[in-house]
Amino acid sequence: MKNCCPAQYMTLGSKPREECGVFGVWAPHLDISRLLYFGLFALQHRGQESAGMAVSVGNALTEYRGMGLVSQVFDERILNILRGQGGIGHVRYSTTGSAVQANAQPIFLQENGYKLALGHNGNLVNTRILREKLKREGVHFETTNDSEVMAKLLMKYYSTGMTIEEAVEIALPQCQGAFTLAIITPRKVICLRDPLGVRPLCIGKQEQNGKTAYFFSSESAALDIVNAELIREVQPGEAVVFDMNGMKSFFWTEEKPTQEKICMFEFIYFARPDSYILGRLLHLCRQKMGTNLAGEVNFDADIVISVPDSGTPHAIGLAKATGIPFMEGLIKNRYVGRTFISPSARMRKTKVRMKLNPLKEVMKNKRVILVDDSIVRGNTSKQIIELIRDAGAKEVHMAVASPPVKYPCFYGIDTATQEELIASQMTIPELTKFLGADSVNYLSIDGLIDATGLKYDQFCLACLNDKYPIPIKHQLSLTKLALEPD
Amino acid sequence: MKNCCPAQYMTLGSKPREECGVFGVWAPHLDISRLLYFGLFALQHRGQESAGMAVSVGNALTEYRGMGLVSQVFDERILNILRGQGGIGHVRYSTTGSAVQANAQPIFLQENGYKLALGHNGNLVNTRILREKLKREGVHFETTNDSEVMAKLLMKYYSTGMTIEEAVEIALPQCQGAFTLAIITPRKVICLRDPLGVRPLCIGKQEQNGKTAYFFSSESAALDIVNAELIREVQPGEAVVFDMNGMKSFFWTEEKPTQEKICMFEFIYFARPDSYILGRLLHLCRQKMGTNLAGEVNFDADIVISVPDSGTPHAIGLAKATGIPFMEGLIKNRYVGRTFISPSARMRKTKVRMKLNPLKEVMKNKRVILVDDSIVRGNTSKQIIELIRDAGAKEVHMAVASPPVKYPCFYGIDTATQEELIASQMTIPELTKFLGADSVNYLSIDGLIDATGLKYDQFCLACLNDKYPIPIKHQLSLTKLALEPD
Amino acid sequence: MKNCCPAQYMTLGSKPREECGVFGVWAPHLDISRLLYFGLFALQHRGQESAGMAVSVGNALTEYRGMGLVSQVFDERILNILRGQGGIGHVRYSTTGSAVQANAQPIFLQENGYKLALGHNGNLVNTRILREKLKREGVHFETTNDSEVMAKLLMKYYSTGMTIEEAVEIALPQCQGAFTLAIITPRKVICLRDPLGVRPLCIGKQEQNGKTAYFFSSESAALDIVNAELIREVQPGEAVVFDMNGMKSFFWTEEKPTQEKICMFEFIYFARPDSYILGRLLHLCRQKMGTNLAGEVNFDADIVISVPDSGTPHAIGLAKATGIPFMEGLIKNRYVGRTFISPSARMRKTKVRMKLNPLKEVMKNKRVILVDDSIVRGNTSKQIIELIRDAGAKEVHMAVASPPVKYPCFYGIDTATQEELIASQMTIPELTKFLGADSVNYLSIDGLIDATGLKYDQFCLACLNDKYPIPIKHQLSLTKLALEPD
Amino acid sequence: MKNCCPAQYMTLGSKPREECGVFGVWAPHLDISRLLYFGLFALQHRGQESAGMAVSVGNALTEYRGMGLVSQVFDERILNILRGQGGIGHVRYSTTGSAVQANAQPIFLQENGYKLALGHNGNLVNTRILREKLKREGVHFETTNDSEVMAKLLMKYYSTGMTIEEAVEIALPQCQGAFTLAIITPRKVICLRDPLGVRPLCIGKQEQNGKTAYFFSSESAALDIVNAELIREVQPGEAVVFDMNGMKSFFWTEEKPTQEKICMFEFIYFARPDSYILGRLLHLCRQKMGTNLAGEVNFDADIVISVPDSGTPHAIGLAKATGIPFMEGLIKNRYVGRTFISPSARMRKTKVRMKLNPLKEVMKNKRVILVDDSIVRGNTSKQIIELIRDAGAKEVHMAVASPPVKYPCFYGIDTATQEELIASQMTIPELTKFLGADSVNYLSIDGLIDATGLKYDQFCLACLNDKYPIPIKHQLSLTKLALEPD
Repeated sequence: MKNCCPAQYMTLGSKPREECGVFGVWAPHLDISRLLYFGLFALQHRGQESAGMAVSVGNALTEYRGMGLVSQVFDERILNILRGQGGIGHVRYSTTGSAVQANAQPIFLQENGYKLALGHNGNLVNTRILREKLKREGVHFETTNDSEVMAKLLMKYYSTGMTIEEAVEIALPQCQGAFTLAIITPRKVICLRDPLGVRPLCIGKQEQNGKTAYFFSSESAALDIVNAELIREVQPGEAVVFDMNGMKSFFWTEEKPTQEKICMFEFIYFARPDSYILGRLLHLCRQKMGTNLAGEVNFDADIVISVPDSGTPHAIGLAKATGIPFMEGLIKNRYVGRTFISPSARMRKTKVRMKLNPLKEVMKNKRVILVDDSIVRGNTSKQIIELIRDAGAKEVHMAVASPPVKYPCFYGIDTATQEELIASQMTIPELTKFLGADSVNYLSIDGLIDATGLKYDQFCLACLNDKYPIPIKHQLSLTKLALEPD
Repeated sequence: MKNCCPAQYMTLGSKPREECGVFGVWAPHLDISRLLYFGLFALQHRGQESAGMAVSVGNALTEYRGMGLVSQVFDERILNILRGQGGIGHVRYSTTGSAVQANAQPIFLQENGYKLALGHNGNLVNTRILREKLKREGVHFETTNDSEVMAKLLMKYYSTGMTIEEAVEIALPQCQGAFTLAIITPRKVICLRDPLGVRPLCIGKQEQNGKTAYFFSSESAALDIVNAELIREVQPGEAVVFDMNGMKSFFWTEEKPTQEKICMFEFIYFARPDSYILGRLLHLCRQKMGTNLAGEVNFDADIVISVPDSGTPHAIGLAKATGIPFMEGLIKNRYVGRTFISPSARMRKTKVRMKLNPLKEVMKNKRVILVDDSIVRGNTSKQIIELIRDAGAKEVHMAVASPPVKYPCFYGIDTATQEELIASQMTIPELTKFLGADSVNYLSIDGLIDATGLKYDQFCLACLNDKYPIPIKHQLSLTKLALEPD
Repeated sequence: MKNCCPAQYMTLGSKPREECGVFGVWAPHLDISRLLYFGLFALQHRGQESAGMAVSVGNALTEYRGMGLVSQVFDERILNILRGQGGIGHVRYSTTGSAVQANAQPIFLQENGYKLALGHNGNLVNTRILREKLKREGVHFETTNDSEVMAKLLMKYYSTGMTIEEAVEIALPQCQGAFTLAIITPRKVICLRDPLGVRPLCIGKQEQNGKTAYFFSSESAALDIVNAELIREVQPGEAVVFDMNGMKSFFWTEEKPTQEKICMFEFIYFARPDSYILGRLLHLCRQKMGTNLAGEVNFDADIVISVPDSGTPHAIGLAKATGIPFMEGLIKNRYVGRTFISPSARMRKTKVRMKLNPLKEVMKNKRVILVDDSIVRGNTSKQIIELIRDAGAKEVHMAVASPPVKYPCFYGIDTATQEELIASQMTIPELTKFLGADSVNYLSIDGLIDATGLKYDQFCLACLNDKYPIPIKHQLSLTKLALEPD
Repeated sequence: MKNCCPAQYMTLGSKPREECGVFGVWAPHLDISRLLYFGLFALQHRGQESAGMAVSVGNALTEYRGMGLVSQVFDERILNILRGQGGIGHVRYSTTGSAVQANAQPIFLQENGYKLALGHNGNLVNTRILREKLKREGVHFETTNDSEVMAKLLMKYYSTGMTIEEAVEIALPQCQGAFTLAIITPRKVICLRDPLGVRPLCIGKQEQNGKTAYFFSSESAALDIVNAELIREVQPGEAVVFDMNGMKSFFWTEEKPTQEKICMFEFIYFARPDSYILGRLLHLCRQKMGTNLAGEVNFDADIVISVPDSGTPHAIGLAKATGIPFMEGLIKNRYVGRTFISPSARMRKTKVRMKLNPLKEVMKNKRVILVDDSIVRGNTSKQIIELIRDAGAKEVHMAVASPPVKYPCFYGIDTATQEELIASQMTIPELTKFLGADSVNYLSIDGLIDATGLKYDQFCLACLNDKYPIPIKHQLSLTKLALEPD
């Protein structure tokens, strides 16, 4: 007995979903809201659930946010009335709580005439404790998200008359976890990173007619779209402030952190291939991951194909290294967009075919190496391999250009619970069988590190090796962090 | 003095836009509206302005259509109430008249209790005459589009009590032009092609539990998505009827046409690479176009890059044939969608960077071959070449894997007027200078034909060689067909 | 510290809100969905939160529902595709659970190929027990509303192959409470009332060109709008079935009920004044309530004014009986509609003035009798009296043309909890002071009964005299029935 | 042969429609956008097609406008970002051009850094000439409405560096017609009336905590809703300026006008009954119109009923004067709202019954006097009289509490063309027959003037007596002013 089902968002599969992206601008001479719009547009892959902006003009601070894509939330009329000398923007995919307007960011607060707005990318691990403490002091919470906790903690100090820089220096050391923040007050725009720098953040500049515009962004690719030049990345524990006096920087941590722990998944899959992190162009790192995998495994096949678009650089690297020709075997629907319509039970294969269509003539009777950047839950890989077999491939060898993802992320990525992470549940032979492949090969951690050209200890590799750089309480270590409602 | 500008749809550039796609299904045992939904979803590239369906149940015929993408027009609730034994669907990009609801298809008519709906891909060349004739007979028109003329001509005969097959046989021979039609009456679903078969159309079948579902589609890739098998293409001048008795076929032309004139642009750019036309997988034809261009020109460069996604197969073909390595040099924004927000004048480069971002490290100091499938107006190519030069390329050689497009299309594609077709306005040296390239090379017509594996006289090549297979009145031959409002 | 407030629906005040209205039609020859639309439009006052329809054609049963007013949920395109030989419609204001799509009615169920849809007006008192029982049998619930329980109880029997009439006869006797139901299956439309007939329901007919259309409606005024003639009311415990064979009726209770207990509040306020219940035109009953109040109290004043529109008939009756002239003293905003914008704290009086504006020249220095149909929470009356005093009235005598509402309703009306019912919390002198009036007078229960021309024992008067005709468990008797989520 | 009809807005009938309302506020200490919202909400009856606001903060001026009701155009998020020290608002019903976004007001212009926005109520009679002149000077027009002409004429002078007051003094004398304007620049809010003061305009004030807020409004009832006190009306030819220095006033005409010509239709029907014009409460004027009609005609009947709500004051006045009892005979649907759904041809009576339902028991076998404020086209009156006859009335005597409307309005009201004005096409006996009444009686012009307590020459009575106070070119005098598109 079944009621009319509520509409559900149909996604292809099990790729981890980044929770957020932030973007900011200080440019009294430019059209702030339009710059924020295009910046967020370029960061859309980091969050498709909601989008928002906060801009300041004079002593006013206004915000506008809504559910949906950047292009759905904002229109010309809204951009025209969002004027200011500076602004911050945010895109979000929520992992805790339901998808509701109240969770959209930036979070806007005012108290005693003090106003601030905050956008967050990351995840705290001591949210509960901080929230309980604030609640005992009389603070009321409207959501269960950690971003509200950080915003209200900041406001607690800021509303006493401190400068926002002082408030940051007192409030932030109380927060444990991964966080890249964008903060705006009526006269200043601020961005900062946690002491380990888990989530990326960089600064850009644009000179025009003798006037300087400053930008910050989760990824450098969003600086390109607004024609700004990447100056440098924000360092772990550093806060950068933009105001009428230009740009200045300070470390909000007691001591300047000496260790970075950037998220490896940004390198493998999340960030755009045209972004730079720690000076590395991710596209080239990903090609090298394919190259390195070719060096670790003795592949023997007729063609190399990729799961487009994210697996293509890895596949090209692997193809070149092995000498096996790269072919386009799976065609991605050029116009695929969001759809909330589910195929009925009978139309099982429609779901994956909406995004990918196999080319039989390319794969028929061929021994195929299928390259993907990573495997998380495994369901999509299984469906794709079935498509390839239906297309007549003789053999399908799954080549994963990263190591097995076995441990959940507590620092801002919605991978899955440990139970859902297929690599933590099966041995390689079991996985090979489950996926219906002839073989499954992963890149080693060493091969991965080598592909980035960076050092082992610069990364957070917790999802790969169970070494969490920020302590997680035991009960959280095996399941996803679930925050109780207020 | 300037009022608030009305919002405008921001498109990257100058690619020709296909006007329409049709899809149909006969399957009393299946969920008709959901099958139509996914079929149209797979044809979304053929028209993003409006979408619609008509379904029949018992003696009823109902339609639903709206402006926007398939996923925007339909939702679960609408699909749930669109029930039937058969249905047709349509996606549209309009080239004449403004983008309004009234132009969305299928067109639904009823007269004297007779009901039919019609969806059209193509363009008539004798619309004016037919419409004048019908108006003199008292027929009222609500739009200026040729599809309404065809629908009302059919209804003129059908409403006298003829079968729909008889009406087709009397009405259609009066129509001159390119047309692929989807027609539905309460008891039948019909598809047909014009006598030259300018626009593609194919038939599919799905057997399940002893029951047969029939499908037709502008492109075979849409059959894949609903898990149907491609049986064959509809022949020029053929009409195929689906009803309770299964499928039957007849030629509505006086004699069975002996000559096909399929649109070459479907092969070069329009149709999905994973579609088959005349038995050829377009992806492989396009690779071969790149290969053949490599055979005609003596390329000397460091890397081959493509304008993604449509130019990629051609680029891979060219790279393999020349031995120059293929690289991804332009990254396409994974989440680019429709936006109606325009960058301001100051943000000139933002427009192209919203879709494509160049990888400096890939192109710096390199001699680059930039492969695209075709050039129409030339503006986008110019912008892309500027991006590549900004990224540090030493030389940029434009390789166009098709011949120069010099003549406008009057058969259903919105290329441009002749004045806008850059290849008809400039010599190769002029074009090279205009685009800012170091060289520009086109594929020859012979090289193109060879890449398809078909014969010269199977194609409509009017846009390339000025030989229009369906006579166009002189005054129309240099400008786009403009229909006067009623 | 305060976040941006979520939008709230601004209502003037404390009038009890009817929870639902039902409407149905059987007319294979007419435009079913349009008739349902206008019927629901006329019942809009019975529920503004959601609206829905279910129609049947052939063996199909389809439904469409949404949040908002009838005119917001349906448009031409939706009505055009909702075709059928019969249909039911529903408008709803929910009192339990939040306002969400899932609660909109009709509820649509299908199981084993059996389909039915149900719309409900009323409230069960044994929901918990029934739900627990069904849950133990494996039935899953999506909402907490009692309507889903009734629908699933019916389906439990109907899906075994019984006729819907048989299912009604087995399922309904298990339900205790007040309920008027509209039910539709692919071939039949049914309406029925509970054994006491607490909520109203009547039947209409329209003859045109020798064809008969049947209607049923919560109120007769909705029959007028579709030009149908009121035939009769449905009797307590009676079910009326409409299908291809016309109309037939049976009693689903073991014995034909002998006692009616119609809700008195339908007479006082809820139902439209142009509706008939038990043969009485409510407008005239309400005038008589004013007349009778004039007979019970010795009024001495200069003018009589009403709280428009609902208090106007009572005021006219009272004015005529006392000889004190009736004047329009409070002007109702002609275009007031739904607004979700709240006046800020500083704009306290804006809220009531959005709906009512006092005429100073009419009331200045006058002794005013303010007539209203009833008082529930008292807040609005208090605000209105303040408005009248601000306008310069010398005295304000509140005349309530019904008895004090002291006890909550458990049969389908959202009055309030007992604590919120002002008459249960204060003596008349306290109330007079609270409202800021010079005097407050209520009509007696006898005077009320007399005004209807009916008998004492034909009514449910529970909210006035604490005599609940359907037993309520003790713990429910002082507070509103709160259903726990599933 | 008929296509699916486009949705049309269903209105009951033929009442003249006011074209616009304006509202303004200067209050740096208050929530400007919320005050504008409620002001416009109270003026909603003056225009339901579009609504808009412009607010200024610092040197910025921003506007937001859209199609639909005030409550549909604005929401909490929009009001929150529309901050400022002053603002103007506008509601509009367009009579020329189609209902499109571009016609929504305020019109916003900027040139050479000079910004202004303008809202208009009224109609120019020399639009063509002014526009031609401006076009020859290079001004581009986006709409055909006269408001754009006035705005651009003002900007022509303002953008040269003049003060806005100087620009008003040069620009406005070039304009002929009826106009009440609301103007805003970054630092000032201005309102003004034409030299004859055809459209109403008044000023209000609110003192709170020692701070003064200023308001202006088309009608005083909108001052009530924001709790402001009516100070005075703006005089013909006067402009009132609000800024940081408070309020100041000047006459923009060469000499102070000595003659007012206020529109009589504001008194009869348009303005809210709770508004004051020239010191008169319209509700009482309207009652007196009924009283005076009773003095002019020898009525003999059983009951007096009104067409609610607008005809009710007139009916009460007439009832009291004749001694014939006033009864509610037509019940207005409490929740009637906007609907775009049309009843089908078969449902002819549904249209009027959606708004009004007759009470048979009140009217059966009665001789009924039906009182309405005015008759314009006559269709609605005809339908209502048919309803009353269907309800069993023995006689229906139409009493119109204003004189016959025979001549079109060229000063801002969409009455109709002369051909559509029923009183200009028929004699009283013909009209009586057309309406199906037993008699039709109109109030005399003298009786009307007397009811207002003002003098004959204070009014524009053009629609009643063909004396147009502002000269209209001959060809316009019989038909509505039609502006050609640009």
